[in-house]
Amino acid sequence: MTRPVRVGGTVVGGDAFTVVAGPCAIESRDQFMTVARRVRDEGGAVLRGGIFKMRTDPHSFQGLGPEALAYADEVRRATGLPFVVEVAAIEQVEVLAPHADALQVGSRNMHNYYLLKELGHTRIPVLLKRGFAAELREWLLAAEYLVAGGNESIILCERGIRTFERETRNTLDLAGAVWARQRSPFPVLVDPSHATGRPELVTPMCLAAAAAGLDGVMVEVHPDNAAALSDGFQALTLEGFSNLTRALRPILAALNRSLSSVEQGIPHP
Amino acid sequence: MTRPVRVGGTVVGGDAFTVVAGPCAIESRDQFMTVARRVRDEGGAVLRGGIFKMRTDPHSFQGLGPEALAYADEVRRATGLPFVVEVAAIEQVEVLAPHADALQVGSRNMHNYYLLKELGHTRIPVLLKRGFAAELREWLLAAEYLVAGGNESIILCERGIRTFERETRNTLDLAGAVWARQRSPFPVLVDPSHATGRPELVTPMCLAAAAAGLDGVMVEVHPDNAAALSDGFQALTLEGFSNLTRALRPILAALNRSLSSVEQGIPHP
Amino acid sequence: MTRPVRVGGTVVGGDAFTVVAGPCAIESRDQFMTVARRVRDEGGAVLRGGIFKMRTDPHSFQGLGPEALAYADEVRRATGLPFVVEVAAIEQVEVLAPHADALQVGSRNMHNYYLLKELGHTRIPVLLKRGFAAELREWLLAAEYLVAGGNESIILCERGIRTFERETRNTLDLAGAVWARQRSPFPVLVDPSHATGRPELVTPMCLAAAAAGLDGVMVEVHPDNAAALSDGFQALTLEGFSNLTRALRPILAALNRSLSSVEQGIPHP
Amino acid sequence: MTRPVRVGGTVVGGDAFTVVAGPCAIESRDQFMTVARRVRDEGGAVLRGGIFKMRTDPHSFQGLGPEALAYADEVRRATGLPFVVEVAAIEQVEVLAPHADALQVGSRNMHNYYLLKELGHTRIPVLLKRGFAAELREWLLAAEYLVAGGNESIILCERGIRTFERETRNTLDLAGAVWARQRSPFPVLVDPSHATGRPELVTPMCLAAAAAGLDGVMVEVHPDNAAALSDGFQALTLEGFSNLTRALRPILAALNRSLSSVEQGIPHP
Repeated sequence: MTRPVRVGGTVVGGDAFTVVAGPCAIESRDQFMTVARRVRDEGGAVLRGGIFKMRTDPHSFQGLGPEALAYADEVRRATGLPFVVEVAAIEQVEVLAPHADALQVGSRNMHNYYLLKELGHTRIPVLLKRGFAAELREWLLAAEYLVAGGNESIILCERGIRTFERETRNTLDLAGAVWARQRSPFPVLVDPSHATGRPELVTPMCLAAAAAGLDGVMVEVHPDNAAALSDGFQALTLEGFSNLTRALRPILAALNRSLSSVEQGIPHP
Repeated sequence: MTRPVRVGGTVVGGDAFTVVAGPCAIESRDQFMTVARRVRDEGGAVLRGGIFKMRTDPHSFQGLGPEALAYADEVRRATGLPFVVEVAAIEQVEVLAPHADALQVGSRNMHNYYLLKELGHTRIPVLLKRGFAAELREWLLAAEYLVAGGNESIILCERGIRTFERETRNTLDLAGAVWARQRSPFPVLVDPSHATGRPELVTPMCLAAAAAGLDGVMVEVHPDNAAALSDGFQALTLEGFSNLTRALRPILAALNRSLSSVEQGIPHP
Repeated sequence: MTRPVRVGGTVVGGDAFTVVAGPCAIESRDQFMTVARRVRDEGGAVLRGGIFKMRTDPHSFQGLGPEALAYADEVRRATGLPFVVEVAAIEQVEVLAPHADALQVGSRNMHNYYLLKELGHTRIPVLLKRGFAAELREWLLAAEYLVAGGNESIILCERGIRTFERETRNTLDLAGAVWARQRSPFPVLVDPSHATGRPELVTPMCLAAAAAGLDGVMVEVHPDNAAALSDGFQALTLEGFSNLTRALRPILAALNRSLSSVEQGIPHP
Repeated sequence: MTRPVRVGGTVVGGDAFTVVAGPCAIESRDQFMTVARRVRDEGGAVLRGGIFKMRTDPHSFQGLGPEALAYADEVRRATGLPFVVEVAAIEQVEVLAPHADALQVGSRNMHNYYLLKELGHTRIPVLLKRGFAAELREWLLAAEYLVAGGNESIILCERGIRTFERETRNTLDLAGAVWARQRSPFPVLVDPSHATGRPELVTPMCLAAAAAGLDGVMVEVHPDNAAALSDGFQALTLEGFSNLTRALRPILAALNRSLSSVEQGIPHP
């Protein structure tokens, strides 16, 4: 049985299907507000948006950093949506925690056991992405680092593994996500934006995740993806996001499920 | 637009979702008849069953060979289901074609261009599995070998790719299957039995394939999988197969689709 | 202990280190003669050159076919070098055998068990390449198909496996080649031309193979690689080939080994 | 041209070939001293030994931690060997730096850009292992994080990549290591202990690395590998280590190279 995890006013891992959405990186107050409103209006239940980015190239855009914290607060208040943000280093935990409802451990940090130990000592929900070359067993052991510290508010997220195939950015291991859900008590999401790197594959993979019985998806949305400062090529447009939730609803209904709703008035932790 | 392919009385690739099912290998008349009846009764529209097997170990069971041809004929007649069988070598084409409604090129033969050329000169439908380490682009080029010979009755089937992960037998590349369907005129199936090697993952992946808009699935079914002579560990039981089609129907209905039906009275080619 | 294999006048798998070299494909009498003379003069002991090619794209150059057989005969006679050629389909066995001292099973055919069975019934030496996604265990089982038929004149050749890395065409699994040599009675070569796809990596990998105790290498050489009809980008130039054997000699000497020599006057089989 | 890096009394990256050796983890004063003496006596020029380990399973041995620092100091003094130790988290930099001549960034931390930035601001030499699923290009970009901070004392180390093959722990990408050496100014080592996970493959791969022109190797040595607290299965015995350097010398001599020597009396930084 999956143990639901409360993220602000949203419960992840019960009967409902949670759509986590937002831009890869918060680029400005307006960009984030625009995306967040659409996410809320169309059925998204958790907001995402990067503040400190992990970039392969040291000369790439690394996120707005502290400047974005105020935007996050404002958008969170305005929309009522809980907010999940990636924590890329131990010292960011205390910086980000007051502004977020959950902290994300990114793919490159799944093996960063010191960060996991630190998060194990907090009680903030953790969204733990699978390393892009992590075996399923290693992913569950990474969650064990959190549990060992006393933090059991864990959401797993498969985001594609690295294979020989290059038409897609990674290979979404949907069966592996189902395997993890069958063997662990944690809700499991998939992130088809990073997994496929192609917006035209994101919606089919979200529908597939719903049909396979997973607990939700995390998708990137950008109002103008050609102008995005990071990974814009893979983001859904605002309209693409509307189409996604419209397509999800009948499949969820056929399974006696629905999109997660956000309970308003829940004070952020 | 996908070009539908007629396989005996079944059309693969139109609005309907085709379930291809049967044992990994035909082991006896009774085993094949038992499985085939359940497949037909529960909504399967094409029958599968190996006659000449491709086995990694020369000392493994290699299929019944010619003895199984009579069983295939009888079962095909008794159930009215069209039959697809793997052709493992050029000289088998003329042996198998009179007994089958489609010939399957297995994963290990996707790069066997001489076999593809031979099949390109026939007009029998070909179910072309993706090589377990073939790039998507190479898969479409393999289909091009058939087209170049004049045979455009092609059904693609993704059956899992080889990755570092070992909890599953292979990694089902569902997004890759959708990619292929978006870029080629051929219907696309997935085979979650070989892809996952775990019966408990087969049904979720079939539902996912339906939700993602693919044209069908190919699954292995065995009346007594502990006693199967090849790959029994991954086969659905008869009851598991019934559960699969029962779970598929509401999802297909939500998408205004249904299971393929078999038009009776179509003479086999 | 490795069991040496006689290929025409060359023994593969004894104390000496065998350099197999030649063009990817025989393109003309002159091209093949030019390369072959350089190969012989610089210490190569077996000649290679494709006649029927396995190409991913049906519209690529597929080899000269039967026209090249006469060139092979002439070059073999003129240089005294034994000749190994890839056999891509069962019906080519009897076409090629009279013109070759060994037949190569290419990477894409390692899993073609019907071809292996056919070769198992001959007594011609077989150079068995590892499939580009074959596990080491599967490679040895493929050799077992030959042994089961009675043919134990087997030379193994590792030619790179498919991984996520793309700066090199494949990833040369040198440790895997050594593993195979430690566990099987067959001599083991590596083919760094296909493995790396980069001429500047071919010589270092040949030296590495010698130091690691393997039995030889197979390399592609072309007199004008910019004009080559297949895979020219990875071929050594004639001068590059001279540099290779010049670099190999001192390393082999340090190991009390030397380049294989060709015993002249050995009638071709 | 490679830019040599001074690590205590040893120069890595000049004409000489550097053998870095020691136990996976420092387990006791005696274990470390025993190994270190053999390493020094047989031609090793840098000592390794883990203090804070990165373990997949939170319940595995995690290294002795601070207790081992005194052992490291004592062994370094007694043998005169420079010492490289893995730094697994930012806060360990200042703990470890006074006791080490170089800090190692392990495979799981290659993508930990915050750690790299921190090390970029020091002037201590960094041994940067390739991530086990990092592309070569990403590896060089990780080095770029160090360079961007002003630290150009970088030694690269390839330690095997994750592939479908499982007979070896990872697949040593020797050609990739040579590629990196051809394209970057940094010396390049390989670590065949982690790459292969099999002691019987370690020596052949070290010889191969020497022949391929790389700058050295890093190997694990344990006096009693059956009793080792981590990764003992892959360590060379003391005698195995002696055999390794004995086998390296003639190959290096053939290339007009030799084992690195340690300049004594160099004060540790």
